Amino acid sequence: MMKTFNELLEQVKSLPMKKVAVACAQDDAVLEAVKAAKDMGIADAILVGDEAKIKTIADVLKMNIKDYEIIDVKDDYEAALTAVKMVHDGEADMYMKGLIDTKSFLRSVLDKEVGLRTDKTLSHVAVFDIKDIDRLLFMSDVAFIPYPDLETKANIIRNTVEVAHACGIANPKVAPLAAVEVVNPKMECTVDAEKLTQMCENGEIEGCVVDGPLSMDLAIEPEAAYHKGTTDRKIVGDADILLFPDIDAGNITYKTLVHTADAVNGNILTGTKAPVILTSRSDEFDAKVNSIALAAVVANNLA
Amino acid sequence: MMKTFNELLEQVKSLPMKKVAVACAQDDAVLEAVKAAKDMGIADAILVGDEAKIKTIADVLKMNIKDYEIIDVKDDYEAALTAVKMVHDGEADMYMKGLIDTKSFLRSVLDKEVGLRTDKTLSHVAVFDIKDIDRLLFMSDVAFIPYPDLETKANIIRNTVEVAHACGIANPKVAPLAAVEVVNPKMECTVDAEKLTQMCENGEIEGCVVDGPLSMDLAIEPEAAYHKGTTDRKIVGDADILLFPDIDAGNITYKTLVHTADAVNGNILTGTKAPVILTSRSDEFDAKVNSIALAAVVANNLA
Repeated sequence: MMKTFNELLEQVKSLPMKKVAVACAQDDAVLEAVKAAKDMGIADAILVGDEAKIKTIADVLKMNIKDYEIIDVKDDYEAALTAVKMVHDGEADMYMKGLIDTKSFLRSVLDKEVGLRTDKTLSHVAVFDIKDIDRLLFMSDVAFIPYPDLETKANIIRNTVEVAHACGIANPKVAPLAAVEVVNPKMECTVDAEKLTQMCENGEIEGCVVDGPLSMDLAIEPEAAYHKGTTDRKIVGDADILLFPDIDAGNITYKTLVHTADAVNGNILTGTKAPVILTSRSDEFDAKVNSIALAAVVANNLA
Repeated sequence: MMKTFNELLEQVKSLPMKKVAVACAQDDAVLEAVKAAKDMGIADAILVGDEAKIKTIADVLKMNIKDYEIIDVKDDYEAALTAVKMVHDGEADMYMKGLIDTKSFLRSVLDKEVGLRTDKTLSHVAVFDIKDIDRLLFMSDVAFIPYPDLETKANIIRNTVEVAHACGIANPKVAPLAAVEVVNPKMECTVDAEKLTQMCENGEIEGCVVDGPLSMDLAIEPEAAYHKGTTDRKIVGDADILLFPDIDAGNITYKTLVHTADAVNGNILTGTKAPVILTSRSDEFDAKVNSIALAAVVANNLA
């Protein structure tokens, strides 16, 4: 079982080298991560964007630019469409955001001709490796879907389970989170959590164990489960996947972890034909490299 | 300005000694915290409950039971009413939960004859001292009010501002949190956040600065504000008070901090005639002592 990002990086190195197509690659932080990913044997890259600017940044970073395929497209959106089409056509395995606004980037992901849309729900998965937690935690949705209804939550779980499977977790435990661990008709997310648990028992959600509602402590801390007497549940502080009630809870928790925990993370957009990496400028270097590694593992599973 | 719980503990020691009335004091974890609070000069205690059991536990803890007033009431709810009445009558300064279920304890808080109800909204305040954050963070509501409407959110802010004032923070910065830092009509909490900001500008919420919506990173991490170019806002990663959109977001964040951050915390119920301490068995010893200290500071301000 996958325990840490270091182990995930090792897993990726053992796989056939994947290729990431970068939209508007003239971004120092993105190029730095792409260079590290290549140096570590995690992924090769195709750099689409303003070639002159890319080369200037590459010089500063002491990147050997001859090792990379560069496609010169000056217009940002044209560059995105060019990059995403390479993934769409199978010339690259994953798609990464460079120096382009998120809205335009997502529009290219969703483009009907050359984009990566499938009939699945698009959702975001954040993966955390937290000190003193002996496994990776997969969290969704903390960035993309605002207020999912029951069916959307089921789809979010399905997407996230696929990512966990790709990371070697055969039968992940999924905790639909709430403020409490019992159903309360006045708290909609607890009602949904129970329905999702039943959907898993009925075989409507496969490849995982769902047990909710659960509070955060009962989901991640075995001691809390012993304290509160919930050791008869399917999840006893050993959840792999955390399903958030909505984007407010998810995003606030995500940023709390980034800024207060001893943790590293990586994130991808999934439910697409190929994994999409849309880390932001404020993400740390590690998060960018981890995201490429996560995408590579998922791409390998899709291949 | 108050920066850490250690400084808060020092502040309390300089105040006239406060007295906590404990409902059903026959609880080892509670008595341990009460003993520590007395030994540290933070608070004296009146122990209401099963005297024989209290004495047995006191023996184990090597507590000098003669130093404490004990009132022998075997029935749990009677014990709670006896203890809360002492606070109601001014014989004690704060009210603490012992070995009694939360529902009965809260019923005693709300008792019309001898309870601590006021015309204010009752709300919960969690105070965190987090490593690498140079001030205390006051969070509400993570445990008591499920889905506050706009007016209730304003009342939660008013209650929490009073607690911050008691802790020596003259003009706390209040961040109504959301997943984003801009108003989006489809995200109700961002609309509320803007209205709360206006209510503060209009003088409807006093003694603080409100600036929302804000994402968690922009509320607590100055660097994130520089990265994202929000340095022209009233809050630039320097919020004192975090208002959560709802209990799901609040509680999940609270438990994430408890279980993953290098942090200590204390919690009280406020909006009452006197501060109420209802820590749970799963709370750490430190959290219980910190909660008594926090209650003592607030009680001193009410006196």
